[in-house]
Amino acid sequence: MDQILLREDAGGIATLTLNRPEALNALSEELMAALQAALDAIAVDRKVKAVILRGAGRAFCAGHDLRQMQAARQAPDGGRAYYQALFAQCSRLMTSIPRLPQPVIAQVHGIATAAGCQLVASCDLAVAAEDTRFGVNGVNIGLFCSTPMVALSRNIARKKAFELLTTGEFLTAAEAQAHGLINRSVPSGEEPAQARKMAETIAAKLSTAIRYGKRAFYEQAEMPLDQAYAHTARVIAENMLEPDTAEGVQAFLEKRPPNWEG
Amino acid sequence: MDQILLREDAGGIATLTLNRPEALNALSEELMAALQAALDAIAVDRKVKAVILRGAGRAFCAGHDLRQMQAARQAPDGGRAYYQALFAQCSRLMTSIPRLPQPVIAQVHGIATAAGCQLVASCDLAVAAEDTRFGVNGVNIGLFCSTPMVALSRNIARKKAFELLTTGEFLTAAEAQAHGLINRSVPSGEEPAQARKMAETIAAKLSTAIRYGKRAFYEQAEMPLDQAYAHTARVIAENMLEPDTAEGVQAFLEKRPPNWEG
Amino acid sequence: MDQILLREDAGGIATLTLNRPEALNALSEELMAALQAALDAIAVDRKVKAVILRGAGRAFCAGHDLRQMQAARQAPDGGRAYYQALFAQCSRLMTSIPRLPQPVIAQVHGIATAAGCQLVASCDLAVAAEDTRFGVNGVNIGLFCSTPMVALSRNIARKKAFELLTTGEFLTAAEAQAHGLINRSVPSGEEPAQARKMAETIAAKLSTAIRYGKRAFYEQAEMPLDQAYAHTARVIAENMLEPDTAEGVQAFLEKRPPNWEG
Repeated sequence: MDQILLREDAGGIATLTLNRPEALNALSEELMAALQAALDAIAVDRKVKAVILRGAGRAFCAGHDLRQMQAARQAPDGGRAYYQALFAQCSRLMTSIPRLPQPVIAQVHGIATAAGCQLVASCDLAVAAEDTRFGVNGVNIGLFCSTPMVALSRNIARKKAFELLTTGEFLTAAEAQAHGLINRSVPSGEEPAQARKMAETIAAKLSTAIRYGKRAFYEQAEMPLDQAYAHTARVIAENMLEPDTAEGVQAFLEKRPPNWEG
Repeated sequence: MDQILLREDAGGIATLTLNRPEALNALSEELMAALQAALDAIAVDRKVKAVILRGAGRAFCAGHDLRQMQAARQAPDGGRAYYQALFAQCSRLMTSIPRLPQPVIAQVHGIATAAGCQLVASCDLAVAAEDTRFGVNGVNIGLFCSTPMVALSRNIARKKAFELLTTGEFLTAAEAQAHGLINRSVPSGEEPAQARKMAETIAAKLSTAIRYGKRAFYEQAEMPLDQAYAHTARVIAENMLEPDTAEGVQAFLEKRPPNWEG
Repeated sequence: MDQILLREDAGGIATLTLNRPEALNALSEELMAALQAALDAIAVDRKVKAVILRGAGRAFCAGHDLRQMQAARQAPDGGRAYYQALFAQCSRLMTSIPRLPQPVIAQVHGIATAAGCQLVASCDLAVAAEDTRFGVNGVNIGLFCSTPMVALSRNIARKKAFELLTTGEFLTAAEAQAHGLINRSVPSGEEPAQARKMAETIAAKLSTAIRYGKRAFYEQAEMPLDQAYAHTARVIAENMLEPDTAEGVQAFLEKRPPNWEG
């Protein structure tokens, strides 16, 4: 239990726990590397159908590890090479989530700030305790949340995103839900059960279909309309040809539950 | 009245009715072809100023015709060529709606699922009875709604779209309105009057202006900011040069109703 | 006080006032030129940390100056060259707001229609009196708001934008907030204090960080995900290397207020 990242698998659901509670699960280089390795392993693990990402202790994640970052200034270049590598590492980690074949659900509580808020925005789905506070508040210490805003601005409307980034103010979970940053705000303490319920719902689907769909979801989002349709028309035709899908459609027509191999 | 698609014109408004009530207006090849032909005819019909799309019977539209699709598996290629052609046909149909010169209003009731939900998302405007249920629930039978998500994800925020697609859960009409999938949820039974009112409002405008605007609306949506402005600045300058627009502006300045030819 | 645009600076905040109250601050050529010149001057004025844009009299801004536009029809070309130049001038003005290094807050009251609504949509942030009415209602006089829709459709969801543009109907401030067009609807008369509070909050941040962030915000919005991350990772690394940011992070770690030069 003294590892910085924990993985627990049950019922086709992998739960990843950021485990630096004393640092509010700040994303040190080591924690980012551990999370990257875990996601890379899950990507090729056919037994995993959904992922839950959570934080140990009082918070989901408070962003980057500022103490570690500040120490890097001692390098001859003032830290330039270190910061470039660090933010490249972080960006690769964040984009690994939409690229993972399986859906990833953020189970959020306490605080989700800066890169912690980016992590929520990068997940496919998110459930949060109602007393969670969300922020991209780096501006308060002179470091604008420029990388978090990539994920944030693909989740919520422009003026609200700009406001959060420039004022450093926080969102409640109810506000985060209203603005589209999370799927659901739930009574505090119920977020583990709600995240699990969502994961179980997804894990019960045909995982081949989920894989086709998740991949195409993010691909088509960056395409103009005609190209998006040309691409997804091919994807859904391939999906239709899967033997398990043939069984799923047949079962529906016969009003019986499907008998899936996948 | 035994045609699979009905068209009725009145007061510059064409009402198209999906008329396979016994199949919950499932989009068979034949129904898609009929709807395509109707839209192609309306596109060049200057008397039509707005279109209402509705479904006969208990539902707006329950998606593709699964029985017909399943039968295609008997082909030597397992249906591959059929499915590719079918989804290409469907994609062309869906993109014909934003490309139609006239605004199209979905008048929705009962259920709008899978390609039926895609039809709602593809329309320019939508009014729904409050007890309508919306879903992109193909995932429940192992067929991810990859083509419907193209239209859906251009209407509603990312996390909610992903949730609907992967859980197969339904939205109420009130939720659909809050998330931007429809313009208005109204008491059940009032959706025909409300859709007609919206169509009449639009039909009373200068249709030349609506045509300039609708076309540019979807064109500029796919452009970066500078290109979008360069394009729409040309469009609005042309609009300004129309004789009926000259009359419209003059009438406004003289505080009298315009006397339009168009 | 008889100038068509007023500028008042205090506490690092420049307040620009559209000052054609008798014309509901309609954007004549001259007013657009004056606003462009003011923004160009502010862009290189390091003392300005935030901008408030407001209107004198009963309204924020009622759009273009229709009387001036109509007069241009007397030209041999019917006004074509004039309209092309006018909308190019307007488009340049509108895009100067997101390109300004400092955040711009619209302080809105009365009405914000057509190009006046575009101005609100083009600002980074907006606060409005609750009795403000917003509209892109050019369609009512036969001139579709094709240029305003560029800004509008980058703020609010597709179906609502299309509805406003084609029906010419108005939004209340509460609706404008719900749809993302403004940040906050406040009791009438409180919008100056609320806009100033927002400006002061931003002016108190490290302006170097705000400049990095605002520029990257709009740049990354037009990029695909990977490119957006590659770009913002470079930006945040540069931001981290700023001496004032080093001090800001250090102050945070030492739980004391930062001592910034910038």
